[in-house]
Amino acid sequence: MQAILDDITAKVTAMPDKGKVATYIPQLACVDPDQFGICVALPDGTVFSAGDAHTLFSIQSISKVFTTTMALGKLGDAIWKRVGREPSGDPFNSVVQLEMENGKPRNPFINAGAITVVDAIMMGHLPKETIAEILEFVRFIADDNTIAIDEKVAQSELLTGDRNASLAHFMASYGHFKNPVDYVLGAYFHHCSIAMTCEQLAKAALFLVSDGVNLSTGARVVSEQRARRINSLMMMCGHYDGSGEFAFRVGLPGKSGVGGGIMAVAPGKASISVWSPGLDRVGNSHLGTIALEMLTQRTGWSVFGH
Amino acid sequence: MQAILDDITAKVTAMPDKGKVATYIPQLACVDPDQFGICVALPDGTVFSAGDAHTLFSIQSISKVFTTTMALGKLGDAIWKRVGREPSGDPFNSVVQLEMENGKPRNPFINAGAITVVDAIMMGHLPKETIAEILEFVRFIADDNTIAIDEKVAQSELLTGDRNASLAHFMASYGHFKNPVDYVLGAYFHHCSIAMTCEQLAKAALFLVSDGVNLSTGARVVSEQRARRINSLMMMCGHYDGSGEFAFRVGLPGKSGVGGGIMAVAPGKASISVWSPGLDRVGNSHLGTIALEMLTQRTGWSVFGH
Amino acid sequence: MQAILDDITAKVTAMPDKGKVATYIPQLACVDPDQFGICVALPDGTVFSAGDAHTLFSIQSISKVFTTTMALGKLGDAIWKRVGREPSGDPFNSVVQLEMENGKPRNPFINAGAITVVDAIMMGHLPKETIAEILEFVRFIADDNTIAIDEKVAQSELLTGDRNASLAHFMASYGHFKNPVDYVLGAYFHHCSIAMTCEQLAKAALFLVSDGVNLSTGARVVSEQRARRINSLMMMCGHYDGSGEFAFRVGLPGKSGVGGGIMAVAPGKASISVWSPGLDRVGNSHLGTIALEMLTQRTGWSVFGH
Amino acid sequence: MQAILDDITAKVTAMPDKGKVATYIPQLACVDPDQFGICVALPDGTVFSAGDAHTLFSIQSISKVFTTTMALGKLGDAIWKRVGREPSGDPFNSVVQLEMENGKPRNPFINAGAITVVDAIMMGHLPKETIAEILEFVRFIADDNTIAIDEKVAQSELLTGDRNASLAHFMASYGHFKNPVDYVLGAYFHHCSIAMTCEQLAKAALFLVSDGVNLSTGARVVSEQRARRINSLMMMCGHYDGSGEFAFRVGLPGKSGVGGGIMAVAPGKASISVWSPGLDRVGNSHLGTIALEMLTQRTGWSVFGH
Repeated sequence: MQAILDDITAKVTAMPDKGKVATYIPQLACVDPDQFGICVALPDGTVFSAGDAHTLFSIQSISKVFTTTMALGKLGDAIWKRVGREPSGDPFNSVVQLEMENGKPRNPFINAGAITVVDAIMMGHLPKETIAEILEFVRFIADDNTIAIDEKVAQSELLTGDRNASLAHFMASYGHFKNPVDYVLGAYFHHCSIAMTCEQLAKAALFLVSDGVNLSTGARVVSEQRARRINSLMMMCGHYDGSGEFAFRVGLPGKSGVGGGIMAVAPGKASISVWSPGLDRVGNSHLGTIALEMLTQRTGWSVFGH
Repeated sequence: MQAILDDITAKVTAMPDKGKVATYIPQLACVDPDQFGICVALPDGTVFSAGDAHTLFSIQSISKVFTTTMALGKLGDAIWKRVGREPSGDPFNSVVQLEMENGKPRNPFINAGAITVVDAIMMGHLPKETIAEILEFVRFIADDNTIAIDEKVAQSELLTGDRNASLAHFMASYGHFKNPVDYVLGAYFHHCSIAMTCEQLAKAALFLVSDGVNLSTGARVVSEQRARRINSLMMMCGHYDGSGEFAFRVGLPGKSGVGGGIMAVAPGKASISVWSPGLDRVGNSHLGTIALEMLTQRTGWSVFGH
Repeated sequence: MQAILDDITAKVTAMPDKGKVATYIPQLACVDPDQFGICVALPDGTVFSAGDAHTLFSIQSISKVFTTTMALGKLGDAIWKRVGREPSGDPFNSVVQLEMENGKPRNPFINAGAITVVDAIMMGHLPKETIAEILEFVRFIADDNTIAIDEKVAQSELLTGDRNASLAHFMASYGHFKNPVDYVLGAYFHHCSIAMTCEQLAKAALFLVSDGVNLSTGARVVSEQRARRINSLMMMCGHYDGSGEFAFRVGLPGKSGVGGGIMAVAPGKASISVWSPGLDRVGNSHLGTIALEMLTQRTGWSVFGH
Repeated sequence: MQAILDDITAKVTAMPDKGKVATYIPQLACVDPDQFGICVALPDGTVFSAGDAHTLFSIQSISKVFTTTMALGKLGDAIWKRVGREPSGDPFNSVVQLEMENGKPRNPFINAGAITVVDAIMMGHLPKETIAEILEFVRFIADDNTIAIDEKVAQSELLTGDRNASLAHFMASYGHFKNPVDYVLGAYFHHCSIAMTCEQLAKAALFLVSDGVNLSTGARVVSEQRARRINSLMMMCGHYDGSGEFAFRVGLPGKSGVGGGIMAVAPGKASISVWSPGLDRVGNSHLGTIALEMLTQRTGWSVFGH
């Protein structure tokens, strides 16, 4: 495995086209595009990594998997009254579908859906309490208490978050929100700004590899059925309007973030994280996707074969 | 397995809500809604079946998997220039997205995409030649030369096919078509009208269980990679705007038809077909989906767990 | 008036940017773009004209005013059950709104609406009968029996009419049509292919100048209220998604065609027609609009002032 | 004229269906629906009125005509770089078109357009300064220094203004805004909350009757061309997606507000205001529209006849 990761790292870092770093959050725009990290974690906690796998990066939308998991724990299936579970076919921040469907987001992994999830788990608390709770959960599943929020990124998002503010106010106009819009946005921008390394991220995904249990710590995070369903959501909606492409090329459930990270799951086999800041046309890590495609071709880990 | 299928059949046929039979094709509207069949085929060709598994029904959109497989064989990846591979988030016959994206359908499993696929495989032949070729292919993969087209259904579709004619002319207006619109529609309506039993359908899907090879006949139908990719397309786009729901509840790649059939694949394990004419809100078999959900819960066959 | 028209003609024909001739109908694409005609008809039938005011051109969508007038005569307000009277905000051949509003076109001057109007006035007759009836009506209001259809243009439209065929089949799929789609399209393509000169067109509009009566012949064509309402439809919907622009710049009710003609009405004062084949971005005559803007500025004929 | 107004008032107040009072702004929801006022102002300032023509009501979107007039004075045609002049075909608060057209509103009379106009005229000032300037302008054109803002309505709008906040943040996300979103919204909500009587409103519209001059005071407000263009905007876009209907039935440029007021202009003849709180399906005064239809039928004031 180490040899495979080293080889993939050598190959993708040599590629001339590294995609384009996200520019709409100023703090992300200044990240060095020449970075690439990859990590594979086996169910027992063994990790293999290569490249910049120990560099902290902004996990951005990958955090939506964690908040959705929390929401399912707190509300159970009641969350599906507020957010759907269908791929949207639209970009991550589109408001068109939201208007057509009366303010109910298609799934929890587009921005509108993830903002709704934050409103659902906030339950009358203050933003800082909700943020602390999210952070605690991420530390628990990754078994790492050093994980923290990058405050500079959070502030940068708050100052440039008009599109997300628009989505939030839009949904609030239907009376869907239970907490003040500003509180929800505050917590949302902060959980997007969690900084993690590839290794931390791969470990955090281990509970999705083994039907809800992190076998390296022995902790059951969610039930078997719920773990499978979270994987299905990642498969169907994890890469915005590039989800079909990711399924076609990589064949694993996964979730991307505009910070350039991707967290993927090969059920029963391993969790995988990659990071490279340059994005493709729809906002997913360009080199990261290529690396995952190489990895699943070599390992045969696609869920669509055997 | 037989006991499981018998039990599922007993349970779902006892359910009061059987969904609504499709009415827009007159010939389909008169099918008895109280029918239910299920079949599981193992890689070696062993089949288990229950209920009306030997009754012929109209496979409708399930045929799109077969034509897409043919198109990939004839054109290779060039087919992706004419049709995408993303879930559409829209109903099966929507034209909205088609206009926004200049006549290129989102994927080969919505009507516009499947019509495009027929144009691609027709290659200047007459409709009856193309129909014969499609039928021959289906007989080959199912290893059954008795499979035929239900001409009454085909005529019924032709007479009531304004929506599909609209989609076809729309795409033709962009200059995308290489054959006359009427020829393409004729072949399209006919392949949708292929009649099969659950058992025939489960056998026809065996090549998708075993990475491209029908192990019961030994015939390689497509390459390993292609088989996996066809599975990924079924997972992402196989149930129209209910694809996310199917992935969430059933967790297998599958394709539905408005005749009430569903063909599903558990890679490495089995192919499964169910049929019950009553449909749910988005046009997928109501009891069929429930039966598949029961089956995967009992067998643990979801691709999202292990 | 003659001096004004001569001066306008001199000015606009000297302009370097003449717009772009419509290319989607081959027969229209070969029209010489350097032509320009203008004609003003006073209520008593006096005409002033300049430039190529006696050259025949394809009136295209201007014919929609005539068929709508006929439909109002035949069906009265019942026509509004099948077609709306709101501006669409969309291009002339868009199908998006049609899907959102279940096959009911926004107004009779977009293609879908005009095709519906033809279905409404056809009433079980053969296309050639309907075409003859339309032609007779246009000859009557223009007081000119030489007006005829350009068969070459009609054939050219038939052969390249996929977009309109798509719209027609789309509406037919809702069960809205009372005649065969092919019949309706045949009549539609033919009335779009009527050839007229600026002078004939200005005369044909005289009944809209004088509250329903062509004062030069004494014939009452429609009631006062109906004449005013047809003018309102031209104002609101006469230039597709450039209707607001036309109202803003010209300030008169008018209807354009992709052949480059525009028919406008200054109530109580005059009817005006212009023709120049080059079109602007939204499909209206580029020089024609400029000429009308000049004319209304010099004459003060805007309905928005006094 | 007085007899006509008295008769119309008697007829419409006797009608059982008075429409539905707007409920989304709590302060508007408690207005007594049984009120109706009408006023006609002649160019020399003579006024005829009937019913509740001296009762203050919330002018709401009618204020958009005044702010647009101000913006044209301050920026001239440069305002058209930020807002279009086409009817939208969509409801007043739709965000769909805004996304398709990259944050540029179709016209200044839908909410997104009017919010943009406020941003344009604010020019770095504080909200209270902008509000004062708008109020001063309205007092000037109506020649009445008692006109004021209803603070209760303004506060009610601020508290329930999520939809408008969504539109504003959406446009701000494209970098289109020059002032803080909260400042712009504050000024917007306040100008919508101006309270006027029918008589004040009819007088305020006099400058649009006489090509830019209020003949009763002698003050030129805008140039002749600009007055005509403002009338054209009211005609094309003054009643949201009911603009075609208003043109068809009433035949005059006009602007409605969800407070139940309508301001209309018969160029060269008179300005007219009506008020009745009950709204029709698209948000325009139900009885007000009927009253205007009666008035123009009796007076022949339609711009589409003579």
